[in-house]
Amino acid sequence: MIKVGVFGASGRVGKLLIEDLKSTQGMSVSSVYVRNSLDFTIDPSVLVTSDMHTFLNGCDIVIDFSLPEACESLLEEAVKTPRPLVIGTTGLNTHQLNLLKQASEVMPVLYATNMSLGVALLNKLVYQASKTLEGFDIEIVEMHHRHKKDAPSGTALTLSESAAAGRNLDIDKVRVSGRDGNIGERSSDEIAVMALRGGDIVGRHTVGFYNDGEFIELNHTATSRNTFSKGAIRAGKWLADKEAGLYSISDCLELN
Amino acid sequence: MIKVGVFGASGRVGKLLIEDLKSTQGMSVSSVYVRNSLDFTIDPSVLVTSDMHTFLNGCDIVIDFSLPEACESLLEEAVKTPRPLVIGTTGLNTHQLNLLKQASEVMPVLYATNMSLGVALLNKLVYQASKTLEGFDIEIVEMHHRHKKDAPSGTALTLSESAAAGRNLDIDKVRVSGRDGNIGERSSDEIAVMALRGGDIVGRHTVGFYNDGEFIELNHTATSRNTFSKGAIRAGKWLADKEAGLYSISDCLELN
Amino acid sequence: MIKVGVFGASGRVGKLLIEDLKSTQGMSVSSVYVRNSLDFTIDPSVLVTSDMHTFLNGCDIVIDFSLPEACESLLEEAVKTPRPLVIGTTGLNTHQLNLLKQASEVMPVLYATNMSLGVALLNKLVYQASKTLEGFDIEIVEMHHRHKKDAPSGTALTLSESAAAGRNLDIDKVRVSGRDGNIGERSSDEIAVMALRGGDIVGRHTVGFYNDGEFIELNHTATSRNTFSKGAIRAGKWLADKEAGLYSISDCLELN
Amino acid sequence: MIKVGVFGASGRVGKLLIEDLKSTQGMSVSSVYVRNSLDFTIDPSVLVTSDMHTFLNGCDIVIDFSLPEACESLLEEAVKTPRPLVIGTTGLNTHQLNLLKQASEVMPVLYATNMSLGVALLNKLVYQASKTLEGFDIEIVEMHHRHKKDAPSGTALTLSESAAAGRNLDIDKVRVSGRDGNIGERSSDEIAVMALRGGDIVGRHTVGFYNDGEFIELNHTATSRNTFSKGAIRAGKWLADKEAGLYSISDCLELN
Repeated sequence: MIKVGVFGASGRVGKLLIEDLKSTQGMSVSSVYVRNSLDFTIDPSVLVTSDMHTFLNGCDIVIDFSLPEACESLLEEAVKTPRPLVIGTTGLNTHQLNLLKQASEVMPVLYATNMSLGVALLNKLVYQASKTLEGFDIEIVEMHHRHKKDAPSGTALTLSESAAAGRNLDIDKVRVSGRDGNIGERSSDEIAVMALRGGDIVGRHTVGFYNDGEFIELNHTATSRNTFSKGAIRAGKWLADKEAGLYSISDCLELN
Repeated sequence: MIKVGVFGASGRVGKLLIEDLKSTQGMSVSSVYVRNSLDFTIDPSVLVTSDMHTFLNGCDIVIDFSLPEACESLLEEAVKTPRPLVIGTTGLNTHQLNLLKQASEVMPVLYATNMSLGVALLNKLVYQASKTLEGFDIEIVEMHHRHKKDAPSGTALTLSESAAAGRNLDIDKVRVSGRDGNIGERSSDEIAVMALRGGDIVGRHTVGFYNDGEFIELNHTATSRNTFSKGAIRAGKWLADKEAGLYSISDCLELN
Repeated sequence: MIKVGVFGASGRVGKLLIEDLKSTQGMSVSSVYVRNSLDFTIDPSVLVTSDMHTFLNGCDIVIDFSLPEACESLLEEAVKTPRPLVIGTTGLNTHQLNLLKQASEVMPVLYATNMSLGVALLNKLVYQASKTLEGFDIEIVEMHHRHKKDAPSGTALTLSESAAAGRNLDIDKVRVSGRDGNIGERSSDEIAVMALRGGDIVGRHTVGFYNDGEFIELNHTATSRNTFSKGAIRAGKWLADKEAGLYSISDCLELN
Repeated sequence: MIKVGVFGASGRVGKLLIEDLKSTQGMSVSSVYVRNSLDFTIDPSVLVTSDMHTFLNGCDIVIDFSLPEACESLLEEAVKTPRPLVIGTTGLNTHQLNLLKQASEVMPVLYATNMSLGVALLNKLVYQASKTLEGFDIEIVEMHHRHKKDAPSGTALTLSESAAAGRNLDIDKVRVSGRDGNIGERSSDEIAVMALRGGDIVGRHTVGFYNDGEFIELNHTATSRNTFSKGAIRAGKWLADKEAGLYSISDCLELN
């Protein structure tokens, strides 16, 4: 039984983690770190603390979805009490990323800004398809909720990079984000990345490969934010017995 | 049994028409008009002629998929020998469209640049959904083969007009054809019409309506050019007993 | 400003209703009925009560997502203090349905076991498409989460009835729920209703119409249970100024 | 320039091959074998013959889409005049398959009953996804035209085997072909393979992987029979410089 320490337990993904771990075989929450332990209710068998050292001593591995500064403190403390660390906090600055690399010299650290297993796998499949399906036209469509302010999504851009990499293309030279007017025939290298917006769509990405006679479309759809929690749990299970080093979600999928 | 005269019998759709009519109950080809009858092989029971008057006398109704000038001659001759006319020729100029209107005063004329029943129906459904689903975001995606030179497709533009009409919007003011960068939150009125290109896709159109909690997507896919032939045959069957007048494919669907 | 009374406020949809009404123009929560008002926290301007009469006096219209017995009490009390009633409670027995009909003689009552606007619209579109697209093959696919115990879904069955009605077919005679082996060519009247199960899919329904040369696919996807709350709010706004009578969600859409 | 001999040149795929080879870089038709050369019209630079030996001497490689008996004769003759052979003929009996194996001892032979590159790739991707996405529910949907007599399609069955292989499951024990009634919760191992029929769909296959929070859907769609011709041409180009041996379309994709 792997004892998990949840860091950032009162955050949105932190709460999902505690819930999802209840039904996970071979893993359970043993300690949680929260800034103010008085506010926090959980099964009494779980150690709730705002002391980092106590927190780390109460678990075998740590899963972190917090804020950059809290994560920074975690990384500093973990060097003294090493534990396998799954870091899902986004927006880390250069200094914090350096701390993360230093930590990975003395313990296994898995760092990912998108913990979704499906998206990690999709990138692999897209690379493979792009390489294999020589001469097929590549088009990408992503859709997100109406409040999203940037386009295309970071995930769509990463997918377009995977597609371009399969053909030794520079995505910055071949990416198209709209089509209007007398544009002429499609060039064989261009890769459209079209962004749709509407409703409350959590995230939907489709990468298509089109040729005369046939096409392939590879789709990933996120149905809730649970996907990040689930991904982190699998990552933690995988990371628990690894050697010190810096790992990605792809390493965890053992696809590299 | 309705006797059909095929005008433009050696064209791409004309050939499909002759083939499709063989398996159509209640209709058969009785005469075909071709510029040069020597080149043309068909069942000997069918009258093959390059004389317009003979052609019209040999049939009950006419289906035309030809070129603007040939169609012009047909319209001029038909005024003397009126027959229900299904006109699928595209690119008619103002003079030719006027001839068409004049012809429709003495015989029933159905004119459509896209004879697909499915597309005609989709326009109706989109209008209805747009009107009913107040507050839903509307997004349109079309896909065509890599050789298509203009974007978005004429059909996609018509669909976007149907969607805008359901909300009293001016499509020219709300249409978006690409998204890239820090575009901010989606405005409620905008309607994206995104064009994908690749492979040999005959034509695929999806109109989506997205809200918090649910969405609807209405899709039409053309799998072959037969759809134009099939549409014209149904239009002809419907038109055969109508009074003089100018009709659209929507009239034929009896959805107006 | 329409003052809404939320009946069943501590239930899953009840909570969503209170949240969604905060951002609804022209409507606000004025009273909530809960069995035990001590447990319940809400803005102090809202009347929280476990007295039916007080509850009804505190609002202009009622939206109910509760349990059959509680709904029964509401219907009995409302006859004395009539209010427009939106009833979303499922599983009503014959006696309760009779009470509902009686109530509708003295006040407007809208009753629906699926408050989703999109599903109501889809049924209309499916009927229309089925009628118009004579000769097209009809196939339905639904998908729900892995825990759903019955198949096909009630919504899929209703959609198949809408499709059958458009062609004067008896769905019980033409419905197919699986295909395996040497089944021979498809008969023109059969309508497959295939049930997929997996993950946490809230509900996805696709009705397709297939012919030589083209096909149409009409899809509805629920992304969260909010769709029921949103539907009830729209229904309430529409019902507020109606005469006594029994209404359906389709009446509210004004598609009949 | 690889000189291609087309065997079965008057068949449906044979004709497409000749057409597609015209626009293929680095390859051209140099000889065609037809039973009756008088019926056959082609560019005069191409050798048209009904003599097997002459045919084989006139080309560098052979692509065959014929009938089992003709293919048998080809295999017998090729042992005397070895050429790289791409065999796309279906329905070979045990004797003919043995001849094929014997031929592959003296020349490279690529044999595939589905030459589509996309389907071969899809099988690889499905295996990989099935293995990686532990705990995801797998569901397969295929759609074909209304005239197809068996269900599910051979391709769908192969895909279900790929999915089962990724989890060490026996597909015969876990395959489900329909769902109706009170079936209870989905078991984690079952794999539904649902067959839709309608219109003129050439072939559409979707393999989905569903979990809480996310799902992946991998789709292949054939838009015309050209996909077999295109696949055979790529296979021929790849096979031209290989050693003797029996190869599959997957070898050609270099994914094994």
